[in-house]
Amino acid sequence: MHMHDPTSVGALGPARDKLLFTPGPLTTSLSVKQAMLHDAGSWHYEFNELVASIRERLLALAGVSRAQGWEAILLQGSGTYGVESVFQTSVPRAGKVAVLSNGAYGNRMAQMLAQASIEHVVLKTAEDKPVDASALERLVSVDQRITHVAMVHCETTTGILNPIEAVGKVARTHQKVFVVDAMSSFGSIPIELENCGIDFLVSSPNKCLESVPGFCFVLCRRQKLAGSEGQARSLSLDLCEQLKGFERNGQFRYTPPTHAILACDQALKELEAEGGIAARGARYRANHQVLCDGMAKLGLLPYLDASVQSFIITAFPFPEAPGEAERTDRTDRTNAAGKFSFEAFYRGLSERGFIIYPGKLTQIDTFRIGTIGRLFPADIEQLVQGIRATLASLAERNTVEPQSYGKLTSRKAADREKK
Amino acid sequence: MHMHDPTSVGALGPARDKLLFTPGPLTTSLSVKQAMLHDAGSWHYEFNELVASIRERLLALAGVSRAQGWEAILLQGSGTYGVESVFQTSVPRAGKVAVLSNGAYGNRMAQMLAQASIEHVVLKTAEDKPVDASALERLVSVDQRITHVAMVHCETTTGILNPIEAVGKVARTHQKVFVVDAMSSFGSIPIELENCGIDFLVSSPNKCLESVPGFCFVLCRRQKLAGSEGQARSLSLDLCEQLKGFERNGQFRYTPPTHAILACDQALKELEAEGGIAARGARYRANHQVLCDGMAKLGLLPYLDASVQSFIITAFPFPEAPGEAERTDRTDRTNAAGKFSFEAFYRGLSERGFIIYPGKLTQIDTFRIGTIGRLFPADIEQLVQGIRATLASLAERNTVEPQSYGKLTSRKAADREKK
Repeated sequence: MHMHDPTSVGALGPARDKLLFTPGPLTTSLSVKQAMLHDAGSWHYEFNELVASIRERLLALAGVSRAQGWEAILLQGSGTYGVESVFQTSVPRAGKVAVLSNGAYGNRMAQMLAQASIEHVVLKTAEDKPVDASALERLVSVDQRITHVAMVHCETTTGILNPIEAVGKVARTHQKVFVVDAMSSFGSIPIELENCGIDFLVSSPNKCLESVPGFCFVLCRRQKLAGSEGQARSLSLDLCEQLKGFERNGQFRYTPPTHAILACDQALKELEAEGGIAARGARYRANHQVLCDGMAKLGLLPYLDASVQSFIITAFPFPEAPGEAERTDRTDRTNAAGKFSFEAFYRGLSERGFIIYPGKLTQIDTFRIGTIGRLFPADIEQLVQGIRATLASLAERNTVEPQSYGKLTSRKAADREKK
Repeated sequence: MHMHDPTSVGALGPARDKLLFTPGPLTTSLSVKQAMLHDAGSWHYEFNELVASIRERLLALAGVSRAQGWEAILLQGSGTYGVESVFQTSVPRAGKVAVLSNGAYGNRMAQMLAQASIEHVVLKTAEDKPVDASALERLVSVDQRITHVAMVHCETTTGILNPIEAVGKVARTHQKVFVVDAMSSFGSIPIELENCGIDFLVSSPNKCLESVPGFCFVLCRRQKLAGSEGQARSLSLDLCEQLKGFERNGQFRYTPPTHAILACDQALKELEAEGGIAARGARYRANHQVLCDGMAKLGLLPYLDASVQSFIITAFPFPEAPGEAERTDRTDRTNAAGKFSFEAFYRGLSERGFIIYPGKLTQIDTFRIGTIGRLFPADIEQLVQGIRATLASLAERNTVEPQSYGKLTSRKAADREKK
């Protein structure tokens, strides 16, 4: 980014972008970004052919097709808009949604339903436990009014992977519409739409597809969408009308993020070139493994049990104090001491060219490391070395020079000394 | 665009992007697109400083500031999302909106209000007549339930410029909240927010700011927004919460189109370098003048009277038959003969590197030429020459070689002759 970085040396910016170890927006390939060096007309037939091609390729990536009754609908806005569009469009006035939640994104579903005055009930699980299909089974047996079941596949609050197949089985058995937020998993974890009984799957190109943000997409059973006609409470978020737009003339109803569409075309080509979902998943798995191995050597263990941890993003509880983790073999990972400064840790890593992600858990303090995007195991190794160096610097600072960034911004410190 | 162009010669694509003579997405500078060659972290402080700076500069461009009680709120999605977000957020349950409309974008306001179950009334004017402030005056005198007045500044259906100051005066006198869609005018036509009594102004960076699509922005009086707390029927389109997000931690609530934000920063720098709104408006005005002069020589006159025509986009009724306009001095501009093929005309221009825009009027057939974006009078001259050549080709084809594109795709025609 061509911006003034308060941590950079004087007026000199770095040669390279900092690497993003986040759940998105991500580090993407240069070629994906270069695809945006063109201005496309949103009404133009060449552009519309590209949009049609992307819609088809997204379905193919999910192992389904229009002939099998599936549609891919691109929608302007972030992934949250896509999830809300499904609820705003598909839930009838007398409908009721059962939301299975174990994190911020599941809770966000409940929040958007409340705001849209759509009746709903939330089945909560602890943040470190997968959502519970048997609890849904019990609920739908007693509450006949439930029409929809919704959940998040990979809950990036923690990085936990939730059981879409088990929940989908219950939803299908009881003939409920099944909505899955697969924002951070689609493109690297195989999802069998038919087997999982999914009716609406929402995802975004700027996660495992490694493209840029600007729109999201909904894969849905045409029949379920057709039955939703006229229900949407929002014009912008009306999925039925959005699909009709594509069918009428191949166009988005309203101005599409043309450059993000061009990037997505390139990103899909690169996903195919890498070897598809399996190969991408393998790279991310390797990234995650290198991360866990390296962090363990620093005494930093993931918040989640390995059995439920995805390779998408990993939450780590704060160490008690900077450098502490390197010296001790602590098993208590709560933030009892409260000495660890995420701000200082984050800035230290940023100066070294690594952008990590803050925590989002409600109970304990964590930071998160994403392992998706155009990142390789060698990048993760460097990140771990950067974490080691940052923690060491912070520990030294705490001991030697409290309240100062002197060790980190040595040139500025030198300047101060001169004065 | 790196896509197969059916009109290009064999496998060879053109060296340059086609120029976009549309109301957006537009032709932008290479430097604006190059600003997108970076991946920014949406949580990162450097990015958030940039977002804060863009919000401030948008207010400055409008001649207002936060100190004066104004806020600039960026929102993911197209401009339509921005307009809907204002209604979804600011209109109370018992509220009622008076929409003044003389085209598709005014009508779209009514459509989004209907879909959101917000009471409203539409004051329609003919498509070639500005909306009528005196009709609003009469309406609000008898209908005490009206709380909001909404209109489009430049209605791109025709390119007509509507009287925001006169309507705003009525709105202010009667203490109505005044909402203006200034999508295609903001950045090239001065708008005095205070004088016009505007409470919410919605626009988009991919119009006169000459940036790329991906988000829109709302300039609003903080006090009017604060009074709307808790009213939004949509989480994604909740302007109050969006502002709170920026205030809480400088961030978008949900994933922003980071690359589009970087582009907007560059676009704002280039607008300033050009000399601001006045200089940009002067360039667009010159573009429009060259267009009108050139088209007049081809016998093609604008649909609108010059007194109400903006320099943003111009609608031209179809000529009766291709080439016809060059030979006659017709005054009847309706599409009576129906021989003119917009499809063939459009493709002919596209082959020459010019992308124009279809019409949107309800009564007569038109095509539209946008004169905004990184376009100069020399580009407009070339477009007019392209229109002359295309009309001549179509006329020749109609006479000499009906049902064939032979004269336009000469190489393909030659190939056919060889067979």
